[in-house]
Formats: sequence, structure tokens, C-alpha cells
Amino acid sequence: MADSRFFTVAGPFTLAQLAEICGAELSQPQQSGQVVIDVAALEIAGADHISFLDNRKYINAFTATKAGAVIVHPDLAERGPAGTPLLLSKDPYRAYAMVAQAFYPQPAPSAWVSPTAHVDSSAKIGANCWIGHGVVIGARAEIGDNCRIEANVVIGDGVVIGPGGTIGANATVQCAIIGAKVNIYPGARIGQDGFGFAMGIQGHLKVPQLGRVIIGNGVEIGANTTIDRGAGPDTVIGDGCWIDNLVQIGHNVQLGRGCVIVAQVGISGSCQFGDFVAAGGQAGFAGHLKIGSGAKVAAQGGVIRDIAPGETVGGTPAVPRIEWLRQSAVLSKLARNKR
Amino acid sequence: MADSRFFTVAGPFTLAQLAEICGAELSQPQQSGQVVIDVAALEIAGADHISFLDNRKYINAFTATKAGAVIVHPDLAERGPAGTPLLLSKDPYRAYAMVAQAFYPQPAPSAWVSPTAHVDSSAKIGANCWIGHGVVIGARAEIGDNCRIEANVVIGDGVVIGPGGTIGANATVQCAIIGAKVNIYPGARIGQDGFGFAMGIQGHLKVPQLGRVIIGNGVEIGANTTIDRGAGPDTVIGDGCWIDNLVQIGHNVQLGRGCVIVAQVGISGSCQFGDFVAAGGQAGFAGHLKIGSGAKVAAQGGVIRDIAPGETVGGTPAVPRIEWLRQSAVLSKLARNKR
Amino acid sequence: MADSRFFTVAGPFTLAQLAEICGAELSQPQQSGQVVIDVAALEIAGADHISFLDNRKYINAFTATKAGAVIVHPDLAERGPAGTPLLLSKDPYRAYAMVAQAFYPQPAPSAWVSPTAHVDSSAKIGANCWIGHGVVIGARAEIGDNCRIEANVVIGDGVVIGPGGTIGANATVQCAIIGAKVNIYPGARIGQDGFGFAMGIQGHLKVPQLGRVIIGNGVEIGANTTIDRGAGPDTVIGDGCWIDNLVQIGHNVQLGRGCVIVAQVGISGSCQFGDFVAAGGQAGFAGHLKIGSGAKVAAQGGVIRDIAPGETVGGTPAVPRIEWLRQSAVLSKLARNKR
Repeated sequence: MADSRFFTVAGPFTLAQLAEICGAELSQPQQSGQVVIDVAALEIAGADHISFLDNRKYINAFTATKAGAVIVHPDLAERGPAGTPLLLSKDPYRAYAMVAQAFYPQPAPSAWVSPTAHVDSSAKIGANCWIGHGVVIGARAEIGDNCRIEANVVIGDGVVIGPGGTIGANATVQCAIIGAKVNIYPGARIGQDGFGFAMGIQGHLKVPQLGRVIIGNGVEIGANTTIDRGAGPDTVIGDGCWIDNLVQIGHNVQLGRGCVIVAQVGISGSCQFGDFVAAGGQAGFAGHLKIGSGAKVAAQGGVIRDIAPGETVGGTPAVPRIEWLRQSAVLSKLARNKR
Repeated sequence: MADSRFFTVAGPFTLAQLAEICGAELSQPQQSGQVVIDVAALEIAGADHISFLDNRKYINAFTATKAGAVIVHPDLAERGPAGTPLLLSKDPYRAYAMVAQAFYPQPAPSAWVSPTAHVDSSAKIGANCWIGHGVVIGARAEIGDNCRIEANVVIGDGVVIGPGGTIGANATVQCAIIGAKVNIYPGARIGQDGFGFAMGIQGHLKVPQLGRVIIGNGVEIGANTTIDRGAGPDTVIGDGCWIDNLVQIGHNVQLGRGCVIVAQVGISGSCQFGDFVAAGGQAGFAGHLKIGSGAKVAAQGGVIRDIAPGETVGGTPAVPRIEWLRQSAVLSKLARNKR
Repeated sequence: MADSRFFTVAGPFTLAQLAEICGAELSQPQQSGQVVIDVAALEIAGADHISFLDNRKYINAFTATKAGAVIVHPDLAERGPAGTPLLLSKDPYRAYAMVAQAFYPQPAPSAWVSPTAHVDSSAKIGANCWIGHGVVIGARAEIGDNCRIEANVVIGDGVVIGPGGTIGANATVQCAIIGAKVNIYPGARIGQDGFGFAMGIQGHLKVPQLGRVIIGNGVEIGANTTIDRGAGPDTVIGDGCWIDNLVQIGHNVQLGRGCVIVAQVGISGSCQFGDFVAAGGQAGFAGHLKIGSGAKVAAQGGVIRDIAPGETVGGTPAVPRIEWLRQSAVLSKLARNKR
């Protein structure tokens, strides 16, 4: 049901096909041949659509839905409308993601280089790349196969971009080595000088920033996000990290695998994150901290000390979540007693 | 008195003309023919200039001004210099805005398309549009009359921009339907993928973002601000919203009419704002919240629950303003007692 | 040891040359002819490299280093490996900056204007400027000697840029007068309209923004940072200010000399900063405040009152640092007692 001006739907698919695509079990195997033409939300889906239930908040919408089929956790199956075939999955949101990707696949780029793109003669462009209008690709840069470089992107000398990447319009990349299937959103800034200078009353003096940005595979980097290159060591973003819009990542920062960095987070120079760290929106990290794998920081948290693996913290300065909640409660109570 | 390298002044105007333009009453009708050539601040204005007093802090500057005329609230009229004609208005700042707009009107764009703009042959460009160098306009896009699309802007396939709009240099717009007289500042990012994925240790899996960005009439969107498109539902910005620089608006967010969103605010996915909500700089909103019409959030406030219409909150987690002030006071007192 | 794909090393230099470059004293004058080919970190430096020790945290790395020479404070000289020549400096980080600049000098731009740059015929371009692909330079703009204007930058009518400046790719500059040796990073937005309007239920009304942005000499402005032009007065950035990425500076703000503004700071309209003010990451300033010279604001601090010269504050609302620490301590203790 997406606007056809912007999205092209694939399919149709039978329920059997969709169940296989997302690894779900079909509640009514006799319906395996039923045809679905699109995804849609529970409230607006019709008999030709498949929907999903992930959040118990929407259970009434599930019960009332007119969707032709619904992806749902087995435990909630009985709450569905009588007769509606279900795709049972223990991770229904992930299953929905797979089904939606089947209906709306990322189109493979068609080989095309705009006549107004400026590709240096020493750059190597892989097979099947799409290079938009006004793109600039510097000397000795290497672009892997199947990349999509959108209009007015500027890629500096020597940059390496792995296969299957997308660089959004008006983004800039310099001094960077980027893995496969990396998706950089419009306006992101990768690889510029870090904020490095020797402070002094006689004038701050720039310290040359001699490192790079190394980005792993399958990374997403949000719109207008900034990632500075290293000062000497590299700035490193591990495989599978998801970085939202307007995030700042300082020089020498290292993120492990699968970190989730929500919008407007700021990570100061030389922080080292383990794997699967999650930072809520607008959280901030002082420099040179070690944040253990699986640690979580609440939105707007201000982290000024190392965080142990798996720990969840919040507040400024950030403390373990339970303490933070207690602080809020005790402060609230004291204020109320003053009335 | 603006720098003529950057601004072209219209006029001159008589006081009678200006009073009519801004709906003010002339304190000395016999002066209605007096001519004014420009606006200027109270401190620097001369006999040819009109100034204004909006903030009582500057009342001494009013009393001492050499301005040829001053826009002022009737209650403060007597504090002006003897003999200076006044334009009396109950909303002197608004009256000043109208007078300043008369002296410095937004020039209507002249019809021109740069030979280096790339306008798809299937796009429709309205009358009297100005399309700058290096602009890219995608297939089936529709640009209304009297639009100004500045250099190196990238507009995606199918985008609709209403009449009288301005898209600032190097901005990008995709998957969006935009109303009349919308002003998008340089570097803003509209309509890219929202931050939607199924998290998992085996790798986060992207959920296709199938909604749009719908922007009403008369909206301002600040420099380098990011507005993600909806995941399925649309992201909606109501008529007359003013959004400052570096703001993040997540997928599926809905803003009512006339909301004022100050710089660096972050609004997480699926929040619903009523009309005329005001969010102070760097405030943050957790996802899926309902913020009632007329609600106000103090700068840096961290909102994690619904806010009732008209309520004013502050702090993190945000509480009613009066409680927040009390919390600050009690904490400050406790800390002082510890000395 | 920087990646030669991105950086070109100068030199080699003798220790005598380097000591002179950075004003250090050579611990072993008999080694003054020893040759160094590059800079490197203590841990990875070899016999051909010079390294430095600035932070006592790394003193073990100093003791164990295999570097050919090390820049260090005289007080720590004895902690170095026996026989390693030292460059003794009371400000070793600054001395390192000078040495690193010698090895990696900013290359002077070579005179070149891309055939796809759009330079208005009335613009003046100085000697030895490098103007990249897709750059737009407006009418009557003046670009000083030795400037580097990177690809897809858009410079508005009448803008003045002093000699030796760099404007990073995809940045935009309008209504601005910029001094010598200013370095604007990719995606920065300089000189767009400030956030000025008369609020009203009948619709917010734009107040024409008639001032400029005036930037001194030797200023750095980070990636995707936004600096609005003045509303009537100018927005002014003093000589030698260092502004990090994603910073918001509102209309009419004035910064003195040498201010250090870390990433994601927001400064509301009409604030006046003295010289050498330091604002930590994500700090915010309400409008119309006076911040005295040498004042410091901790990261995430929320400043809502004037700050005296030299004062250090933190927290929201920001209070003197010592009080802020006490508040955190007392709150933490109260919360602990509740267990």
C-alpha cells in the first residue's frame, strides 16, 4: 500500500512462499496457496494484504483486522480473527522485515555513469555501479561492484568502498576504507579532520590528523552524521553497526560489531565500544572511555566513566539505571514535600 | 541599514504607508507624510529610519533613540523621545516584521533553469521557477509555480513541491509531498529511510521504510535538519510549523499546526504533537508519545511520557515546570547545607 | 606511518631541524644529525620515527618505546628508554603539532578552476586558488589568494573569503565576510536566515534577517555545523575560534577570540562570549547571555544565566562546578540510603 510514486511493489506471493521467506510456520497449511499482493498495517490491511503484530499494545487491532494474513508470535495466535491465516514466528518483527523486503526489494543498481560525474581516470569503478549527476570521485579511489553513488556526492582520493554500497546524495567521504553493503545516508560527512589542536593563549595549533576511517560490512550511517578520521590511529566502525542521523563520532573512536547509536548521540575522541552497545538519543560520551559489550545508555545520558559489559546506565553523570531511577524518585519526593 | 552587498532595500515609505502595512495607529497623524528609507535598531537608527521596541529591557534605548519613527506598544508610548512619531501596535514585534518585510521583500524568483541542472524530462516545472546550477530533479517530480531551487539540490523521483517554495543549496528531498510556501534551508535532509530494523545478535535486519514525508503550507525547515520518511504511515509536518537547524524528526512523527521546534531537538519515531507545541533547544522526546496542543518543553528537557495540552514541562525525565524548579531548588539547598 | 593513499610525508628531518621547528631542546646534542622519517605513536614507532608523550597515562609506553626520538616534558625525561634522544619541551603536545605539521604540511593549493565550476563573471578570485567541480560562486563574491574551494560548495553573492581559506565539499556560505586562513569543513552552513519570527496563533510571521556572519582569522568550523546570520546586528566569530561538528550558533551571537566549542553545542541567539570560552560537547546556552572570558561549561551543561569570566559551570541549569559535583554527590547518597 506504499505510494506508487515512490515505491514499486514486487510479488504477488503465496502464503507458502512468504512463510518460507521469513521462516514462519503457517497456521493453516491448507491456505498455503492464498495470494498476497502487499504489506499493510493491521488497521488498514485488506484481504489481499499481509500484516504483522509485534507490540501487545496493538492487540485489539489484531483482533479486528481484515488483513488476509498476519505474522504473529505463536503465543498470541488465538487472539486473531477467526479464520485468518497466520504466519507464526517467534520473532514476528524480523519475519515482517523479511516479508517487506520481499515485496520491496532494494533494486540492484543498473550500470550507469552520469556524463556530468567527474571520475578520476585513475579511479576503479566496479561492475554495475550507478554514479549520479555531479558526483566527484578522486584519484585512485576504488568503488566495488553494485554500488549506488547518488548525485553530488564527493569521494576523496584513495577512498575504498566495498561492493553493494550506497552513498546518499550530497554526502562526502575522504580518507576512508569502507566494507561491503554499507549504506551512507544523504549529507553524512566521513573522514574529515578530527578536532585536534594544542590549545594555547597564543592561538590553538592544529595537530595534523593522520588516521583514517575504517568501516566494516553492513553498516548504516544516518543523514548528516559526522565521523571524523583518526588523529594517528584510525576511527573504526565495526560490522553491522546502525548509526542514526546527526550523530557525532570523534577521532580514534572504535565501535565493535552491531552497535546501535540513536540520533544526535555524541561520542568523544578515543572511546572504545565493545559489541552491541546501544546508545539512546542525544546521549554523550566523554573521551577515552571503554564501554563494554552489550552496555546500554539511556537517552540523554552523559557518560563520564567506563561502563562494564552488559551494564545499563542513565542520567548525567550516568549511573546504573536502577540508581538513576532512585535518584529521580527521591528528588521528586523531596520536591513534593516542599509544597 | 543592511549591507547592500547582500540585501536590497525597497521603499521609501511614508509613515502613513507603514502604519497601514502593519496595522498600527500613527501617534501624530500630521506626520503621516514623513518619509522613512530603512529599518534600524534603536541605538543606531537615524532620522530616516524606523525602529521598534518589543522588549522592556531596551526601554532606555527607546527613550534615547534618534530614530525618525518607532513601532511601540501604546502603553509605552510616553517613554519615547519627545516629538518622535510612533506607530502604536499591540504586537509591535509582529508589526515590525511586516514593516521589515516591506523594506526587504522576498524577491519573486525569475524564470531560469541553469543549463547544468538535470531536470528529468518527465518532471513538471511550474511557471516562474528558478533552478540553480547542478540541481537534480527526478522523474515525475512536480515543482509548483514560483519556486526557487538553489544550487546542487537533489530532488528525488515523484516528489511534489507546492508553489512559492524555496529549497536551499545542497539540500535533498525524496519521498515527500510538500505544500505551498515551504522554506527548506541549506543542507536539510527530507525523506530518507527512517531508523527501522529488527535487532538481533545475528545482525540487525532493515525494515523497508514505505511511508512518505507530508509537509503542510508555510513551513520552515532549518539548515542540516533531518526528517525521516514514515515506516508505513507517513511523517507529517503541519501547516505553519517552524523547525530550526539540526533538528531530528524520526519516522511516523506527526506535528500539528504551528509547532515551534528549536535547534537540535530530537523527536523519536511515532510521536504525535498537537498544534502550537513549543520545544526548546536540545529537548528530546522518546518514541510513541502524545504531546498535547499548546504544550511547552523547556530546553534540554527529556520527555518520556505523554504531555497534556497546555502543560509546560522541563528536566530529564521531564516533569511539570513548577516541580522541575522545585527539584532544582531543593537539590541546590541540600548541596549548600553540605558545605 | 600514515596511509600513503591519503597522506604524503615530507622530510626526512634531522633531530636538530626538528628541535628548531618546535622550539625544543635536544637532550643529546651529539645526536643532532640523526635522521627521522616520520611521526608515530609510542607503541608502534621504530628507530626512524619521532613520537611524543603528553599524557602521564602513557608513561609506560614511553619507557618501552622503540622510537628513534621522543618529544617530552623535561620533568619526565628520566622515564624514557636509556639512550633514546629526547626533544625537551614544556608543551610537548604543541611541539608535536609543529613537528607533525612539518612532516605533513598543508599543501598550498595549485591554481586550478574546474571547467564545471560556475564562477560569476563579477566575482574576484585571488591568485593560486583551487576551485573544485560543481562549485558555485555568486556575483561580486571575493575569494582571497591561496584558497581551496572543494567540490559542490555554494558561495552566495557578495561573500568575501580571506586568503588561505579552505571551504570543504558541499558546504554553503552566504551573507558572510570571512577572514584569512579560515577552515570550513564539509557540509557546514554559514549565513542562512536565523530563527526569527513573530509568533502568533494566526500564523508565525517571518522577521527578515538583515545581518551578516563575520568570521575572524584562523577559525575552524566543523562538519555540518550551522551558523545563522544576524537578524540586524551581525553574528560574529572571533579570531582563532575552534568550532567542532554539528554545532548550532544562532543569530546575533558573538564569540570572542580563541573560543573552543565542542561538538553538538547549541548557542541561542544574541549570546555574547568573551575570549577563550570553552563549551563542552552538547552544552546549551539560552538566548541573550553574557559568558565571560575564560569561562568553561561542562559537557551537556544547560546555561540559563550569565557566567562570570573564568567561572567553570556544569549541570542543567548550570551552576558552579563545585556545586554541581556536590549536588550529584548528595543526590547519589540520598538515593543510596533509600535502598
